[in-house]
Amino acid sequence: MDNRPIGVFDSGLGGLTALRELRKLLPEEQLVYFGDTGRVPYGGRSPEIILRYARQDVKFLSGFDLKAIMIACGTVCTTSMDILAAESQLPLFGVVEPAAQAAARATKNGKIGLIGTAATIRSGAFQRLLGRVAPAAEVFAAACPLFVPLVECGRVEPGDVVIETVTAEYLAPIRAAGVDTLVLGCTHYPLLERVIGNFIGPDVALVSTGAVGARRVAEELRAGNLLAAPGGAGACRYYVSDSTDDFARLAGLFMGAPVTGAVERVSLE
Amino acid sequence: MDNRPIGVFDSGLGGLTALRELRKLLPEEQLVYFGDTGRVPYGGRSPEIILRYARQDVKFLSGFDLKAIMIACGTVCTTSMDILAAESQLPLFGVVEPAAQAAARATKNGKIGLIGTAATIRSGAFQRLLGRVAPAAEVFAAACPLFVPLVECGRVEPGDVVIETVTAEYLAPIRAAGVDTLVLGCTHYPLLERVIGNFIGPDVALVSTGAVGARRVAEELRAGNLLAAPGGAGACRYYVSDSTDDFARLAGLFMGAPVTGAVERVSLE
Repeated sequence: MDNRPIGVFDSGLGGLTALRELRKLLPEEQLVYFGDTGRVPYGGRSPEIILRYARQDVKFLSGFDLKAIMIACGTVCTTSMDILAAESQLPLFGVVEPAAQAAARATKNGKIGLIGTAATIRSGAFQRLLGRVAPAAEVFAAACPLFVPLVECGRVEPGDVVIETVTAEYLAPIRAAGVDTLVLGCTHYPLLERVIGNFIGPDVALVSTGAVGARRVAEELRAGNLLAAPGGAGACRYYVSDSTDDFARLAGLFMGAPVTGAVERVSLE
Repeated sequence: MDNRPIGVFDSGLGGLTALRELRKLLPEEQLVYFGDTGRVPYGGRSPEIILRYARQDVKFLSGFDLKAIMIACGTVCTTSMDILAAESQLPLFGVVEPAAQAAARATKNGKIGLIGTAATIRSGAFQRLLGRVAPAAEVFAAACPLFVPLVECGRVEPGDVVIETVTAEYLAPIRAAGVDTLVLGCTHYPLLERVIGNFIGPDVALVSTGAVGARRVAEELRAGNLLAAPGGAGACRYYVSDSTDDFARLAGLFMGAPVTGAVERVSLE
């Protein structure tokens, strides 16, 4: 048993899709979420800047007495995970390995699609890992630089010509390749599940990095006997690097319900 | 005469539209440009964060022996200009006042449109200044939160359904109001001049904040006898807070020609 909280961070709000899954799987856990909303988005930035910001994010969360940190940001995981893990005293859980393994299990025809931010796709980290866990699979990758800003502007509804046009552009080569599995390599993308599903078709399995990453955290903590004592009431505290008002307004979109925990603004610099 | 350089900064690359005009008007001047590409965009952030970042931008440029700083960022000017000016030893030139005055001169029917980032429109600074310099005018304002990400993804061409749909959404109420003048309150927006012009119609005068701001800088320096000695060869040095590769790739779009000056990466934190 370990009653210490689990830390979760993302460049902004996308990681809340992972937090939501963690809350569902582990309702008795204390969670501490940090969203770097003052510097979001990370996905168009260089690997050096992403690493610098991610180190500050880990350092901030490490100030709490945590049992583990989940990196709920595809961009950080694909560009910085190894370095962060080597530097950290705490166990770090990412989203790349669980998502790659889920995709390897899901595919029947050996054709896997992968979408993510520009930094994620450019890093090649997902592609390399898919090559290891599914060596016979072909991977069709596409960067989707407008997805994060579009999601953050609420352009997530089927029928919106803007999101549908951009989705068709980004995904047409992946659909044409005949994939049967598509990895949503950014924790913002679950909000586009309906739009993406409509375009790519009902027979393609969508792998959500945040959800499979959260399941991995739950499994590992359970296996290590590190879950909180049963019967306790779980809760979540939120920290952001920009306005808490804007956070509260948008966070409900990602959590699927109004956010009720305490929200505090902090400065990392 | 004053041979010291002029500093220019923006959250990212939009300010290059102002720099381009300065180069044209004052080819003998030394210019130092800073783009905070590691934290761009500013336009969706809170006033407190924008002020903090802008102070760091001014502080960085103040490390050079400058004669003046031009704030080529509509978001910084509308949210932080007064505080920055009160704190700065150097003369600061912004884009709000020159653009408001240009709009007041341009309008014949007293109906002025104004577009900018979410932070700019929410601040009300442009609207208040237009109220002072054109008290009889009606102002129709719209925030355009997707314009900066769309411009940075190169979605600037007429015929692109994404930029045209978003433009029509943002500008329809302004067009319906019958404005004859439209202030482009963000230095990214000149790249959308054709798309915006096509939608709003050829009889509407477009006021580009960067260009009118640069003209004001030139006039004020001339009036104060602060121009560089004639006959010198002007030049521009560039500093950014993220990768210089990405900067070089995109900067030509904004400058209308390949960027040839030295580019260096710096850390503000």
